[in-house]
Amino acid sequence: MASFYDDNEDLRWYVRTGIDWEPLVRLTEYDWKAEDGFRAVDEAREFYEQILDAVGAFAATDIAPRWSELDRQHPRLAEGEVVEGQAAREVTAGLVELGLPSLCLPRELGGTNAPLLLWHLTTELIARADVSICAHLGFHGGMAMAALMYSVMEGSTEFQHEPPRITGTRFQDCIEEIAAGRAWGSMDLTEPAAGSDLGAITTRARPQPDGSWLLTGQKIFITSGHGRWHFVIARSEEGPGLEALSMFLVPAWDWDEAGGKIWRARFVGVEEKLGHNASATVTIAFEDTPGQLIGKRGEGFKSMLLLMNNARVAVGFESLGLAEAAWRAARAYAAQRPSMGRTIDRHEMVAEILEGMQTEIQGIRALAMQAAWHEELAQKMRLALAHFPLSDSARAELEAQQKEHARKSRAFTPLLKWIASEAAVEISRQAVQVHGGAGYIRETGVEKLLRDAMVFPIYEGTSQIQALMAMKDTLLAAVRDPAAFARRAARARLAAASARDPLRRQAALLRVRANQAIQHLLSRLLVGKVDELRHHAIASWAEQMRSWDPKRDFGLAMLHAERLTGLLADAAVAGVLLKQVEKDPSRRDVLVRWVERALPRSRYRLDQITTTGPRLLARLGEGA
Amino acid sequence: MASFYDDNEDLRWYVRTGIDWEPLVRLTEYDWKAEDGFRAVDEAREFYEQILDAVGAFAATDIAPRWSELDRQHPRLAEGEVVEGQAAREVTAGLVELGLPSLCLPRELGGTNAPLLLWHLTTELIARADVSICAHLGFHGGMAMAALMYSVMEGSTEFQHEPPRITGTRFQDCIEEIAAGRAWGSMDLTEPAAGSDLGAITTRARPQPDGSWLLTGQKIFITSGHGRWHFVIARSEEGPGLEALSMFLVPAWDWDEAGGKIWRARFVGVEEKLGHNASATVTIAFEDTPGQLIGKRGEGFKSMLLLMNNARVAVGFESLGLAEAAWRAARAYAAQRPSMGRTIDRHEMVAEILEGMQTEIQGIRALAMQAAWHEELAQKMRLALAHFPLSDSARAELEAQQKEHARKSRAFTPLLKWIASEAAVEISRQAVQVHGGAGYIRETGVEKLLRDAMVFPIYEGTSQIQALMAMKDTLLAAVRDPAAFARRAARARLAAASARDPLRRQAALLRVRANQAIQHLLSRLLVGKVDELRHHAIASWAEQMRSWDPKRDFGLAMLHAERLTGLLADAAVAGVLLKQVEKDPSRRDVLVRWVERALPRSRYRLDQITTTGPRLLARLGEGA
Repeated sequence: MASFYDDNEDLRWYVRTGIDWEPLVRLTEYDWKAEDGFRAVDEAREFYEQILDAVGAFAATDIAPRWSELDRQHPRLAEGEVVEGQAAREVTAGLVELGLPSLCLPRELGGTNAPLLLWHLTTELIARADVSICAHLGFHGGMAMAALMYSVMEGSTEFQHEPPRITGTRFQDCIEEIAAGRAWGSMDLTEPAAGSDLGAITTRARPQPDGSWLLTGQKIFITSGHGRWHFVIARSEEGPGLEALSMFLVPAWDWDEAGGKIWRARFVGVEEKLGHNASATVTIAFEDTPGQLIGKRGEGFKSMLLLMNNARVAVGFESLGLAEAAWRAARAYAAQRPSMGRTIDRHEMVAEILEGMQTEIQGIRALAMQAAWHEELAQKMRLALAHFPLSDSARAELEAQQKEHARKSRAFTPLLKWIASEAAVEISRQAVQVHGGAGYIRETGVEKLLRDAMVFPIYEGTSQIQALMAMKDTLLAAVRDPAAFARRAARARLAAASARDPLRRQAALLRVRANQAIQHLLSRLLVGKVDELRHHAIASWAEQMRSWDPKRDFGLAMLHAERLTGLLADAAVAGVLLKQVEKDPSRRDVLVRWVERALPRSRYRLDQITTTGPRLLARLGEGA
Repeated sequence: MASFYDDNEDLRWYVRTGIDWEPLVRLTEYDWKAEDGFRAVDEAREFYEQILDAVGAFAATDIAPRWSELDRQHPRLAEGEVVEGQAAREVTAGLVELGLPSLCLPRELGGTNAPLLLWHLTTELIARADVSICAHLGFHGGMAMAALMYSVMEGSTEFQHEPPRITGTRFQDCIEEIAAGRAWGSMDLTEPAAGSDLGAITTRARPQPDGSWLLTGQKIFITSGHGRWHFVIARSEEGPGLEALSMFLVPAWDWDEAGGKIWRARFVGVEEKLGHNASATVTIAFEDTPGQLIGKRGEGFKSMLLLMNNARVAVGFESLGLAEAAWRAARAYAAQRPSMGRTIDRHEMVAEILEGMQTEIQGIRALAMQAAWHEELAQKMRLALAHFPLSDSARAELEAQQKEHARKSRAFTPLLKWIASEAAVEISRQAVQVHGGAGYIRETGVEKLLRDAMVFPIYEGTSQIQALMAMKDTLLAAVRDPAAFARRAARARLAAASARDPLRRQAALLRVRANQAIQHLLSRLLVGKVDELRHHAIASWAEQMRSWDPKRDFGLAMLHAERLTGLLADAAVAGVLLKQVEKDPSRRDVLVRWVERALPRSRYRLDQITTTGPRLLARLGEGA
């Protein structure tokens, strides 16, 4: 039977060899003490592989062949409810039956207790079949996990330690409904005047004497926003900025005793979109709608960030699944399309396009696995610190580990979101081009991939937002600890110059170029600062330097943020692949191809960063 | 009143200052001797500007606001006829009323006798409103011109010399029907198994005793292929290859005496496409359908080439119109969308995207004007040579001029088709991204631009085909006259090193890098050849070199053809802009921006050409 897992050698390599499952499974199985849990990592891994086989087979045989129905049957608004297309309903029901929505929930809450990484792998498999189904299911399942995490973090989950198990949690009704596939959740952030800029949110929450809250406002572009459970960010405090926002759990309706709906919110519209058509994108209006505060007042933005990395890693896997579909479609077409006496996959330009697609997918997959692994460990260690009783030394050690995983997740995630979503657009565009005229015809199905992919660089934080995050973290780290940056830079230079393996030298050169870009941007920042100092009396310089806010003076770095992100991502992928080669020499070929592509483009980006920008910034400064 | 001509300063600059109208108008007005013709270039230019104003106003007020209807009302097949949507029918009728289909036809055939360049300018204006309407009208009008040109070239047009006028032409019924907007034409090339590879065409033409022909076969992906007049390439001779193809004019139906249709061909289907929805893309079947041979047997491919440059230049202008629409949409959105305390056009990354769009459009427009100008002069001089009585010395001079314009058109056209269509895709993609979530919603209209643009790199010869043409012409020219190439290369190096104006040095550097790429590819070709010689006895080497077919050994050059094309296009644009600066210093800003963008990317492409390729070629050689 066809399976999107079974036919994917690169993906199987990760499950069997590449992923270090041990710490993930250990944490997920409560340090091997969970009731009915696995007692060894291999046992767990075999079970995970069975799940991947089942989901991969379902994706290949029950979702992928229905792409056209899923694309054409748009969800629509009818009598206040959002009605999904028939194919979407049937496919979703099948995935619920496979247990997807409860895959990562603890067994004691009705779940399968799988690591989040397994959920990411299923995301890739489903996205290869239809990315809008994947997004719907992802948010669907993801929101139950979110509810549990929020409850643990605020201390409203009860935990029994021998044997370890959750005995009660504040949002149990929400979690159980989602796990059973009877309802689903969404994250409601965007408003008409607040997209990337969440500080501009105007939805208001007013506290009631009984401790509950009433919300009023409108949220737009809500993926799967037609379910019952809404995590809503709203303005609960006076004053501007992100500190006035809080997070609420808001049911769009309550059940009456007969199982009918008592409406609390109103679905105002469903968007007609370029693609992603089996996933409803909803406008929802709250008018004195009751909600429960999650965590503390003013911590809405912080709560959102807790989920953000995971959601962005998920977009990385969605992008991979779609790109995999595009690459395979192009490869299959090219292998049977004759032109000028040979099939076009033997034409040099097409051959290079196809190999480039594969190389991008493999490189980005390596980064995705790392980002997901660190994020899951960071998240689970955070939860463990919140509810496990630990000795002081054990706590200190776990805290240190958690911090390191969180740091790595924070570093990898925007690189992944950026490179994966941009690559999915480029690869699906190339797939259309390889098909020639046939690619432009809807029947062929490949243009649908481009339409679907176009949302990746937009949702869950645009590519530009990812780049700004990566740039700020990177430059501020270098500013805060210049000595450490200099040490890392020297190490990279040394490896680029003298590592015995030429491949290692090339990989190091990618890092050297990223560091050169960082140095250039920092030196320009400092020059700008020094120029500014000239207008002040020398006596005030020290004071001026103390009050320096690098964020304010980041013009050139803001301008080049995507290029810096590209440099960082290329170097990060090479670094991850190099570690794979050390573990398994068969991975060398991927690294060879990655480095060959990445070296000229890293030099290009460095050239752009060092030779362009000031003219445009001057023009902007003049208000042109 | 809104006008897409009036609001476009860059375009107006060409009409008023940039374009050397004199030789175009002189030729078009039969050396100023045409009856009722213009007698001076300024008089003509003013008239052309009135036409541009009228078309620009129609595009802005009667087409652009109807984009959604044009996008959604797909043409469909009903009872054997292709029925266009209502909006498309109304808009087309309006453009016919404005005289578009007969714009460039001679007055004596009912036309306006405008230069083809004016038609290209209207193409840009209409494409900015809706590119599928533009393609339909373009082919529509273009095919009447084609019929006339074919007739002149084969000698079946009668010409009176005092005063100069056409008194009769073989395809008069076709020309008059198209000019009056009662019918339209199409070029039928592609078949299911013959896209870029026209040698694989299987449609057959059989000669009849009366000199007519019967055609049998199926043509697909025919833009506006639901009209009466079809220029069909079919296999008329035995044997393989392009020499067995001839060109035929085939009516899909004849009129009976009551004005009813007697069907000669059959419309088999209309494609559902990604975009371009107001333009029908038709499958047509010929079954012993009568047609007339155009020109000589076996010259079908040559006849097609006569039209090809012009059609490809037209895609350049279509791409510009669409890109202009995308840039303006993005700029307008960004100027009013606040985020983080300023409108997003003041955010550095967005500002750079917007400026980059504008720079690409302006640079490519410069190239488009040059390509169109040379192509029109080449074409009209070819016709003049065919029907003007000329003294031997005048003929020799005109022949030399014609050859030079044809050479330039042949050099510029694939660069233009390649860079313009790729840029239109990129710019419309960026326009979606600048809009964020709103860009993904159909209502916003900007995603439609991306869908429409995606056909540019495919139709009228894919980007890859353009690149192969440009690469082969460039390398073969250097191989055939290495001394001339060396001289040009030395001149460019000198200018890059020592021109007084730094901008001139930078522009020359773009040319230097293109030359370096050419040199690299040639040296690799020669190395390959020399390696091959080793297997032959030294005595046979001279013989081997004589029989060397560089086309056969072009592996590395084929692989890098798009990169070489990018290098050539960037240098060509800079060269054209430099000439503009010499004429009008106000154009300096465009060149400054072009060079700033082009320099790093030219180095990138040169890096790719010099550091990648052999590994993949070896793999291909091994049959991997």
